[in-house]
Formats: sequence, C-alpha cells, structure tokens
Amino acid sequence: MQPLICVICDGLPDRPLKQLGNRTPLEVAKTTNLDRIARDGISGMMHPVDIGVRPGSDTAHLAIFGYDPRRYYAGRGPYECAGIGMELQAGDVAFRANIGTVDKDCIVLDRRAGRINSTQPIVDYLGPITIDGVSVHLAPGLGHRMGMVLRGPGLSPNVTEQDPHRTGVPIAAVRPLDGTPAAKQTAAICNEFSRLALERLKYLPLNHERAAAGLPAANAILFRGAGTLPEIPPPFTQRYGLRAAFVAGAPMYRGLAKILGLDVVDFQPHDGVTGKPDSNLEQKVARAVSLLADYDAVFVHIKAADSLAEDGNIEGKIAFIEKIDRAIAPLADTGEWHVAITADHTTSSQLQQHTADPVPVTIKGDGVRTDDVTAFSERACAHGKLGTIRGLHLMRILLDLTGRLPLYGA
Amino acid sequence: MQPLICVICDGLPDRPLKQLGNRTPLEVAKTTNLDRIARDGISGMMHPVDIGVRPGSDTAHLAIFGYDPRRYYAGRGPYECAGIGMELQAGDVAFRANIGTVDKDCIVLDRRAGRINSTQPIVDYLGPITIDGVSVHLAPGLGHRMGMVLRGPGLSPNVTEQDPHRTGVPIAAVRPLDGTPAAKQTAAICNEFSRLALERLKYLPLNHERAAAGLPAANAILFRGAGTLPEIPPPFTQRYGLRAAFVAGAPMYRGLAKILGLDVVDFQPHDGVTGKPDSNLEQKVARAVSLLADYDAVFVHIKAADSLAEDGNIEGKIAFIEKIDRAIAPLADTGEWHVAITADHTTSSQLQQHTADPVPVTIKGDGVRTDDVTAFSERACAHGKLGTIRGLHLMRILLDLTGRLPLYGA
Repeated sequence: MQPLICVICDGLPDRPLKQLGNRTPLEVAKTTNLDRIARDGISGMMHPVDIGVRPGSDTAHLAIFGYDPRRYYAGRGPYECAGIGMELQAGDVAFRANIGTVDKDCIVLDRRAGRINSTQPIVDYLGPITIDGVSVHLAPGLGHRMGMVLRGPGLSPNVTEQDPHRTGVPIAAVRPLDGTPAAKQTAAICNEFSRLALERLKYLPLNHERAAAGLPAANAILFRGAGTLPEIPPPFTQRYGLRAAFVAGAPMYRGLAKILGLDVVDFQPHDGVTGKPDSNLEQKVARAVSLLADYDAVFVHIKAADSLAEDGNIEGKIAFIEKIDRAIAPLADTGEWHVAITADHTTSSQLQQHTADPVPVTIKGDGVRTDDVTAFSERACAHGKLGTIRGLHLMRILLDLTGRLPLYGA
Repeated sequence: MQPLICVICDGLPDRPLKQLGNRTPLEVAKTTNLDRIARDGISGMMHPVDIGVRPGSDTAHLAIFGYDPRRYYAGRGPYECAGIGMELQAGDVAFRANIGTVDKDCIVLDRRAGRINSTQPIVDYLGPITIDGVSVHLAPGLGHRMGMVLRGPGLSPNVTEQDPHRTGVPIAAVRPLDGTPAAKQTAAICNEFSRLALERLKYLPLNHERAAAGLPAANAILFRGAGTLPEIPPPFTQRYGLRAAFVAGAPMYRGLAKILGLDVVDFQPHDGVTGKPDSNLEQKVARAVSLLADYDAVFVHIKAADSLAEDGNIEGKIAFIEKIDRAIAPLADTGEWHVAITADHTTSSQLQQHTADPVPVTIKGDGVRTDDVTAFSERACAHGKLGTIRGLHLMRILLDLTGRLPLYGA
C-alpha cells in the first residue's frame, strides 16, 4: 500500500475576476507542477461541506478529514485554543480573539491592529483576570490572534459575538442566546472582561512605541467563535487504521488536527513556517516527505492564499499560488506515493470572504483512473472524471485508492 | 412495453494496471459486442452503494435490485445458505463456510484447501452434529464453499468470525460482540463445533488420497459472515409490478435473488453453468433470452471476472471478459428488448480485492437518449450522458425506460 500525501491549500480557489479577464488567480498563475499532477491523475470538484454551504475553514477541515461537522463542530474557539497549546477542560468556554484597534468611542478602526506581529506583550501586560469566580485565560496565537478561555462553574457557549466582524462600528455587547442562567452569566462576564481590557490597554507601553511609528494602537480585545470541546471524535488513527501526521503553521488547523488525533508536527522559529505569505513552503513539503517513512498518510495545510484573498490582494494571491506550485515540485515528480491536492473552500478576492463554490481536487497514484484534465483549476477540474464529491467522501476515496477502506458486506 | 434484460458482470471493472500500459483489463479486452451496446445506448458510471463505499457483492446486488442494504442487509450467511437450497427458519444463524487447510497447530495454510472441487464428502463424513441443544447443519456449495446453519433456541448473529481471512495465522476463537446470553452461547457453540470438526476431519479418508496426490488436506471448516434472515423485503414482483427471473450459477446470488422473490432458474450439471471461468455463458444467455417470452425482466449474473481478479489473474480476467463479450452477442444484435450491462463492483487485480471505484453502466433500447460513448469501459462510460448514478437508481431508470415507473404526483 502506497503512502498518501494530501495538500490542502486554504482558500486557493477563487471566482473569475474582471481584472484578470474573467479568469481566476489559479487560472492565471503559472502552475506547472499542479498541472502535471492533474494531468497524471483524476480530477473533480468537491463541495467541502455540501452544495450551497459556505464553509469556515474549521467545518471544512472536519469534513475533509471525514468527521461530519454537523456532529463534531461546536464552535471554532476550542480548535484555535488547542492549536496554540492551551489545555482545555470540560466546561471551559473557548474563544478565538484578535488584538484590534478602537477609537475613544470604542468604534473598531482595525480588527487586527495593523496585523501586529505578536500578542505576547498584550497577554503579559493584562495578566490573570478573574471575574465573579470565572478566570479568563489568554494565550498568544499567530500574529494578531489569541486564544481566550473562560473557566469556572456555570458557563455556556450560547452567547453572541463581541467582535463586530467589521470596522466603523462599536464593539458589540455580548448577549445570551438562550434563557439559561449560564448564558446570562457568560455574557455578563464577557462584557465585563471587554470593558476591563479596554481600560487596562489604554496604558499598554507598547502603544506609545506604535503611536510613534505611526502604527494603529493595540487597544482592544475582540473575541468570537465561542465553543466548548465538542463530542470527542474517535481518533483518526483508530477510525481509519492509519498512522497520520499533519503539517501546518496556523494554530486553528493544528488544534483541530490535534483534537482529531493526528500527530501534529512542531516547527522551530528558524524553520520559517509561519502560516503567512512568507512561510517556508519548501521546508513544509520536505518535512512532509520525510514523514512518509514513518506514517501512512501526511496532510499538509498551506494557509496564505486564503488570507491574501480576504485582504483583496489578487496579485499577492497569484504570486503565492506560484510559490505553492514551486514548493510541491517533489510531489509532481514522484510515482512512489498517492498524492492529493485540494482546498478547504473557495475564497473570493472580490467579496473578500469564503464562498460556497466547490473546490478542485486532483489525485494521482497507482491504479488511479486517469482522465483528460491537464490543468489544476476551478474550471479545468470540473471536467474531471472524479465527478462532484463532498468533503466527507474524500477520505473514503483516498483510503480506497490506497487499499485501506473496509468492505461493506462480503 | 419492451422486456428488459440486464447483465451484471461481477467485478468486471478494474483499475489501470502498469502491466497493461496503464489500461484496465476491460480496456484491453476485445469487446466488440459490449462496445456496440454502448454505442447504441446511453452510458454512465454507477456507485453501487455510494461514493467511497467498498461494496461486497451482496450489498451491491441488494442496491442494484433497488433494496437499500442499510435496511435489508444482515450478513451474507443467509444468502449463501439459501442459494444452495438450505431452508432457513426464523432464529437460525447462518454462515458461509469454506473447507480449508490447517497445520497441526491450527495455523491456516490455505483458506480454500487448494480450491477443492466439492465439499460433499466433508459434509457427508461429518454428519449431523448437535451441541447443547443446537443443531449444526452443513450443505455443500460451489467448490470449496459450504453453508452452515445453527438452529436452536437463544442464538445470535452478533459474534466474531472464526475464519481469520488470511493464511499464516491460527483459526480465530469466536467471541460474542455484545453482552447477551445468546451471543455468548452462540460463540461457545461455534468454538466447540470448530474444535469437533478439526478432530473428526483428521480421519477423513479423502485426505489420504489428497496427500498422495500432493494436494492440501481438507481438514478445517472456516466460517464467517454470520447473519439472520433480514427483514423480509417486499417481493420484487410486487414492488415493481413485473415478472422477473434471475439466471446465475453462484449460490450466494441465487440465494439473494430467491429471498428478494425473483424466480431463480435452475440448471442441470450438463448445462455447464458453474459460476467459474469455465461456465457456459452462451447457455446462460440463451436461457435468459428464452425466458423473455414469459418474463418482463431477466437478470443475468456472470461471476468469474471477480474471482480471477481476486486471484490476481490479469490475463485470465481479460480472456474471461472476451468470453462474456462473445456470449452476449445476441443482446448486441437485437432491437427487441431493453438491454442493460453493468457490474456489481470493481475488483482490482492489483490489490486483489473489491474497490469503491464506480462501475460502468450502459443501456440500449427504444427511446433511450443515446450519447457519444462508443466503448464499454471504465473511462469511456465516464463520458456518458447517463451521468453518475447510485445502484439504488438503476431499477427506477430501467422501469422508467420500459414505461413501468409509478408517477410521483399527478
């Protein structure tokens, strides 16, 4: 049985853009290696969750790994927090948080404080906070991101978001989403924490330096995605009978894979694996390939095409797609492994958001029924003979191609 | 309304093989008649059970006949036993069994005792066995195969398999799969029967002859696929309002069709219908055609492409596909009937097992919307305009083409 390497390119697909002569960034980018894999394999389109469902990266990844998000998804917070090494306990309510910029009237000016490099100084400065017997834990994530965990009795994830998700409006008051005392108390603690943090961050020394450098102040903690630890899913290894590793820089994905029981590879700062456009993709692919000696399946997550599209940076997205293409050259050359290339969702550079458009998927390797597709793109792969599948089908197809799918019947 | 003839070629599809220049046995075989049917009809691909489900022949046939296996499947044993003429009663637990070869330490050396020709001498030699008030009935099936039925109070099919499914390991101890007394008692009876049969077969006279001829001993009964009679499905004739006959040599398929209420055609030994590569396919097709005078629909099952692929016999599979092609010539010539050709699942000659790859399907007859497909193969039919269907769709499509599908609405 050949080992399997599967590359998930976050937000890689896009929609045709007028600026590109009605082509997508993936169609415009020079992608010799991706195209070779498509030419040597079978291609198709995948609805990560379902037709007409606009997936988050979290729900999409659950589905692609074969875990139905309708069963296992309970908010993004837990993945984000697990991914940056926070240990969650039963009853915790976990959020993803950003450090952002607000004006004196609490109007949000920048949801990412100028994409600040690290939130460590903010976490250190705020220190431990306890409100009505509930402790609020913060930990730094990638760039402007943080994990935030409420720990104490009587908490509920059924509360609205404090992060308004756009600029020019005030921070939102958190409201309970049901009539339980737990939801009411959680909302009250969220609002009190929000207020406390605003007040303390007025005095953050870092903000003097940032003001002097013309950078937006890091003065508000914006949080969203409340969740509890979902039903603990059956571990990946046990569910599929394969040893699986996950290579990713961005914390949410690392946390999600950890919770699913994949072995998540650690990188050191000098590896340059950042989850951002500057990430050292050659390093990630090299590590993934070396892992194939010890694992049956290695999944590689590549983040930045998504963030670039969310910033509306079309040229940046094209350049990053070409960077992906160069990095995966070793996968185009080999005949030793089954190779799958796909994405977790489409990110529209025009709308600057995820969309429900299906994503291309291509698989090559021993025994694959090749087709006539010769390019890896949204429209080329739609001609492929893999047809149109759902995210939940992908693992089963990959297991089958590598001879590992259990028989139904006899 | 034209009558319908549907040929189900077991395990006919395959995967591209390096030895065949990246073609499949079906692509390599000369299949003039199959190709003519594809050219004159509409083609597509069918997932027998669902995308990414690796079907057994039993679950696949249930689905192709329009019976959802998730509802009607309860283990293979009952089909196998019904197919060799064993009458099942409520409460019976039925198994498929092989005669195999073990060494003195009960290590399995050959799961089929050298594909022995008949188990009649073994069944006769063992005679009736009763253990703790439960009678164990054996009956000979095709070649090395047998049916085995436990009859008595308090039995359960929820037990593990005694057949280890591979060589080089000992016969497995049967364990209960739940905590019920019935499962415990069934496991205990299975283990006691397993022990008793081993002891008695040491003295089987046939084994002296086999040893002298250098053949592996027929000295162990290996059993698997415990099942009870599933929910009795609504009979085929009543469900679809058509008189249907089934032409097959192999017992499991005959048993399954009998349980679904199709009329299963009997053959005499001189007909040469064996379910093996030497089977007289012309005889089967001739019989099927003659039945069209009395039946609305005739289904023909052809077995050996599957077994040849499971033995890794690529040349044998190609030759057998060409034999099928010659045998179905009368179906390619006619304009009098609707003709459908398909398979129950893919069998990979490389992996020597069923796979979840979809199977080609082609249908010709009055009123069929023909397409541009000119060959019957895995990759040619993927271009067909029938598109990609599921096994559960096939009967409905065939009923509709022949004007027999009930209206939904008014």
